[in-house]
Amino acid sequence: MEDIEIDEVATPELDDPVLIEGLPGVGHVGKLAAEHILEEFDGELVRRVYATEFPPQVSVDDEGVAELTCAEFHAVETDGADLLVLTGDHQAGSNAGHYRLTSTFLDVAAEFGAERAFALGGVPTGELVEEYTVLGAVSDGDLTADLEDAGVEFRADEPAGGIVGVSGLVLGLGGRRGFDATCLMGETSGYLVDPKSARAVLEVLEAVLDLRVDYESLEDRAEEMEEVVGKIREMQEGPAVPDDDLRYIG
Amino acid sequence: MEDIEIDEVATPELDDPVLIEGLPGVGHVGKLAAEHILEEFDGELVRRVYATEFPPQVSVDDEGVAELTCAEFHAVETDGADLLVLTGDHQAGSNAGHYRLTSTFLDVAAEFGAERAFALGGVPTGELVEEYTVLGAVSDGDLTADLEDAGVEFRADEPAGGIVGVSGLVLGLGGRRGFDATCLMGETSGYLVDPKSARAVLEVLEAVLDLRVDYESLEDRAEEMEEVVGKIREMQEGPAVPDDDLRYIG
Amino acid sequence: MEDIEIDEVATPELDDPVLIEGLPGVGHVGKLAAEHILEEFDGELVRRVYATEFPPQVSVDDEGVAELTCAEFHAVETDGADLLVLTGDHQAGSNAGHYRLTSTFLDVAAEFGAERAFALGGVPTGELVEEYTVLGAVSDGDLTADLEDAGVEFRADEPAGGIVGVSGLVLGLGGRRGFDATCLMGETSGYLVDPKSARAVLEVLEAVLDLRVDYESLEDRAEEMEEVVGKIREMQEGPAVPDDDLRYIG
Amino acid sequence: MEDIEIDEVATPELDDPVLIEGLPGVGHVGKLAAEHILEEFDGELVRRVYATEFPPQVSVDDEGVAELTCAEFHAVETDGADLLVLTGDHQAGSNAGHYRLTSTFLDVAAEFGAERAFALGGVPTGELVEEYTVLGAVSDGDLTADLEDAGVEFRADEPAGGIVGVSGLVLGLGGRRGFDATCLMGETSGYLVDPKSARAVLEVLEAVLDLRVDYESLEDRAEEMEEVVGKIREMQEGPAVPDDDLRYIG
Repeated sequence: MEDIEIDEVATPELDDPVLIEGLPGVGHVGKLAAEHILEEFDGELVRRVYATEFPPQVSVDDEGVAELTCAEFHAVETDGADLLVLTGDHQAGSNAGHYRLTSTFLDVAAEFGAERAFALGGVPTGELVEEYTVLGAVSDGDLTADLEDAGVEFRADEPAGGIVGVSGLVLGLGGRRGFDATCLMGETSGYLVDPKSARAVLEVLEAVLDLRVDYESLEDRAEEMEEVVGKIREMQEGPAVPDDDLRYIG
Repeated sequence: MEDIEIDEVATPELDDPVLIEGLPGVGHVGKLAAEHILEEFDGELVRRVYATEFPPQVSVDDEGVAELTCAEFHAVETDGADLLVLTGDHQAGSNAGHYRLTSTFLDVAAEFGAERAFALGGVPTGELVEEYTVLGAVSDGDLTADLEDAGVEFRADEPAGGIVGVSGLVLGLGGRRGFDATCLMGETSGYLVDPKSARAVLEVLEAVLDLRVDYESLEDRAEEMEEVVGKIREMQEGPAVPDDDLRYIG
Repeated sequence: MEDIEIDEVATPELDDPVLIEGLPGVGHVGKLAAEHILEEFDGELVRRVYATEFPPQVSVDDEGVAELTCAEFHAVETDGADLLVLTGDHQAGSNAGHYRLTSTFLDVAAEFGAERAFALGGVPTGELVEEYTVLGAVSDGDLTADLEDAGVEFRADEPAGGIVGVSGLVLGLGGRRGFDATCLMGETSGYLVDPKSARAVLEVLEAVLDLRVDYESLEDRAEEMEEVVGKIREMQEGPAVPDDDLRYIG
Repeated sequence: MEDIEIDEVATPELDDPVLIEGLPGVGHVGKLAAEHILEEFDGELVRRVYATEFPPQVSVDDEGVAELTCAEFHAVETDGADLLVLTGDHQAGSNAGHYRLTSTFLDVAAEFGAERAFALGGVPTGELVEEYTVLGAVSDGDLTADLEDAGVEFRADEPAGGIVGVSGLVLGLGGRRGFDATCLMGETSGYLVDPKSARAVLEVLEAVLDLRVDYESLEDRAEEMEEVVGKIREMQEGPAVPDDDLRYIG
C-alpha cells in the first residue's frame, strides 16, 4: 500500500466549489457541522482518501461489513455555492502525517477547482457556553470584512495556542498555495459534543456562502445532549442545583 | 536490512489456499487458534517475514540458539481446504507499520493463489464468558449467509471500536484487493489467555472450510487456565466464594 | 509538501555573517537573546523554513491572519559583525528531525557565507541565580581563549548531560562541516523565563563580535519577571519570608 | 545529513578480527567490558558512526570541546585474536533504528573481514548476585560446545523475554548474514552498574579468544560500587543489617 491512496469514486463538474473541512476536533463541532451539510443536501461521494497515517482500523456497519478507515469528499450542490465537503473519523497520527494528509486534501480540492476553503472547528472555553460566538482566522487579511459582517469575531492572538491539526494546516498550507482559507471556530465548553456550536458555525456559512440550512435534526441532537448534561448534573449535585460551570466533568 | 525481508523457505503447490491469520491480540484467541491448526495438521514452513517494524529482538530456544523476530507462513493440507497459516509473536509498532506489514502478508497470500482470508481474534466482554459466541465481520455482504449458518453472529456496529491491527487490515486492505475476507472474533473476558474462545473460533472454521479438528490439546490448555483462574480467586476471595465476574483482575 | 521547504524572502549581501541561533529552550534564554538582537537592530527577514517536523499548527496575529509555524532567518547589520539570526517557536519533534532541521539551518547559513556560529541557550541550576555566569562549549579548542577573555567559563564535562537539541547540533554538525561553532549557555534557575540570563549571554556576544547592545527593553522584561517571582513567593510563603531557592515551583 | 554517516578514521589490516559489541544496557555490563578491553590494550580508533537515530546531542570534554554523539569502532591487537570493539553512549531511538544501526555495524565489521561477533551484556536477576554466571545465546548450535567449556551456561528459553536491542540483533541479523554470533550475558542485579559482572563476561572472552586481561582497574571500580551499595544500605536500614536482596532500590 502507498502511504496515501485516493479512490476516485466520481468526478462531477462543480462550479467554483468551496472546500468545507469537518474532521474530528474540540466538541466535534466541525464534524457535526460538515455531517449536517451532508444530511441536509444531496451529496455525492467523490473521493475516498486512505492513508497509512490513519489508525490501522476498520469500522463495521449494520450488516457486518467492514470499511477501512478513510477520509471522504462529497460534492454538494446547494441553493448557494457548490461545496466539496471533507469528513472522516480520524486526524493523522504524527506531525508529518498532518502535513502530508492536508497537502493531499488540498490537492483534491484544487483538482475540483476549489479556490476557497473553510475549516470548521470548535474553540474550548472551559465553561458552559450561553452565547455561541464564532471566532475566525484567515489566510489573508482581505477576507475578514465579509466574515465580520456575518457575525464572526476576530480577537487578537486568539485562540491563544494557535490552531492545531488539519484545520490549522488548511489555513497555513492552503494560504501558502493561494487558497482563500478561513477557519471558523464555534465556542464550546470543550467537554461535550456540541450541536449548538455546530449550528452557530453553520449559520456563518449560510450567510457567507448564500446557503439555506434546516436545523431540525441538529436541534434534536442538541436536545439529546442537554438531557445528557442534565443527567450528569443530577448524578453529581442532586437534581435542583443550578450551575453553569461544567469544569468538573473531566 | 530492507524494511521488510521475506525468506522463501518453500513454495509448494496449494489448491485455492485460504489465508488464516492468527497474530497476538485480545485473549490470544487468534494466536491460539492458528497455532492449534499447526499442531493438529502437518504444516510446512513456507515463508518467514522479517520487518524493521517488529521489536529489535531475538528469542532463544532450548539449545540456546537465537531466532530473529519474524512472522511465519505455514502451508497446511487438511481433509478440507488447503490453508496458509500466518503466525508470529508481534504486531507492528506503528500505524504505518501495520499497513505495510499487512500489505506484505496479503502479497504472500496472493502469491500462493489465496483469494479468501480469515482473520482470527478475540473480542473482550469484560466478564467471564459462559457461552462462547463468535462475532463476525466481512469484506463483502455476500459472505455473511454461510457464516451465519455456521453460528457466527453479526451485530450492528459491533465491535463498537471497530477492529484494530492486522486483523482489521486483513479485512480492510484485503477487501480493497479483492480478497473475500472474514474476521472471526471469539468472545472472551479479555483478562486471560482463552483456549475455549479459540476452540469456538476453530469450530466455525471447521464448518466453513470442511475441516475436522481434534481439540484434546486445546482442552488441556483450557484446564490449565481454569486452574489459574481458580487460584487467583482463592488468593483474592478465599476458596469458596463463587463469582463469575473477572473484572477485578487488571 | 516537501519535508522541509525554504521560502527565499531576500538575499542581501552580507560580510562574513555570523549565525546566531536562538530557538526555544531552558529559561527561553536563547530565544530572548536572539529576539532582543532583532528588536535592537534593523533586521531583514531573509528566509522562512517550514518543516513537517514542526507541529501542524498556525499562530494567529492581531488581525486574525494565520501564519504557518516556521523558523526564520533575519539578516542583521550591526556596528560590529553582520549577523544571521535564527529564531522560531519550535524545535523538531523527533531525533531525526533535529538532525535534518539543523542540517538545513547550516545549509542556509553556509549559503550566506557564514563560517562562525553561536548557539544561544540556558543551563539550569535548580536555584535562583545571583551571578549570571555564562558557560561555553566549542567545536574546536582554539576558540576557547577569546571566549574566556569575554568571561565565558569552561568547566570540565559540563553541562553534565551534554547539550541537546538544535543548539547541541549546531556545535556537533556545524563542527563536522567546518563551522567555528560556539554554544553560550547562560545559567538560569530553569523554572522561569529569564531575561537576565539572556542579557549575560548577549554581553558575551557584544565582547566577542564587537556589538553595542542596549538592554532597556530586556530590563523591563526582567522587572516583570521579578514581579512574577515576588507574587509566587507571596502566594506560597506569605510576603516577607526570604528564600532564594525556587525548587518548590514545579 | 544522511541518516547514517561513517567517518573512516583509519583502516589497518586486521587478522580475522572478532567484533566485540559493548553498547549501554542492563548494569552497563557490556559497555564496561568493552571499555575495559580498550583501556587494557592499545586500541586504534578506526570508524565513527553518526546516526539521526541517536539523540540530537553533543557531550562536552574536559577542554569544553563538544563531540557529536556517535558509536566508535576501535581496532585492538591482543596477545590472542585481533578485535574490533564497538562502543558508544546510546542505542537507537526506534525499532527500525535498531535494525538499521545494527546492519551498519555489521557492514563495518564485514569490511574489516570479521566473521565472528560477540555481543556483551547483562541479564537482570533482581537480586544481589553472589556467583557471576554468564548466560549465552548463539546464532548457530555448533558454537555452544566451546562456550560451555569456557563456563558459559545455556538455559532453555532464557532470558525469558528474549534479547533486545543491538545485542539481540547482532545475533539475529548477524546470524542471517553468516556471522558466527554469540551473546554473552553476565548475571547482574539490574539495579547498579556492575563491574564484577563485566569481569565474568571478560573471563569468558579470555578463554574463548585466547586473551590475557588485567582486571586491576575494573576491581577498583567494583570496590567503588560496593561502597555505594554499602552506603545505600546504611541509609535505608541502618549500618549492620545484612540483606542480599536489592529489590528495594528502584
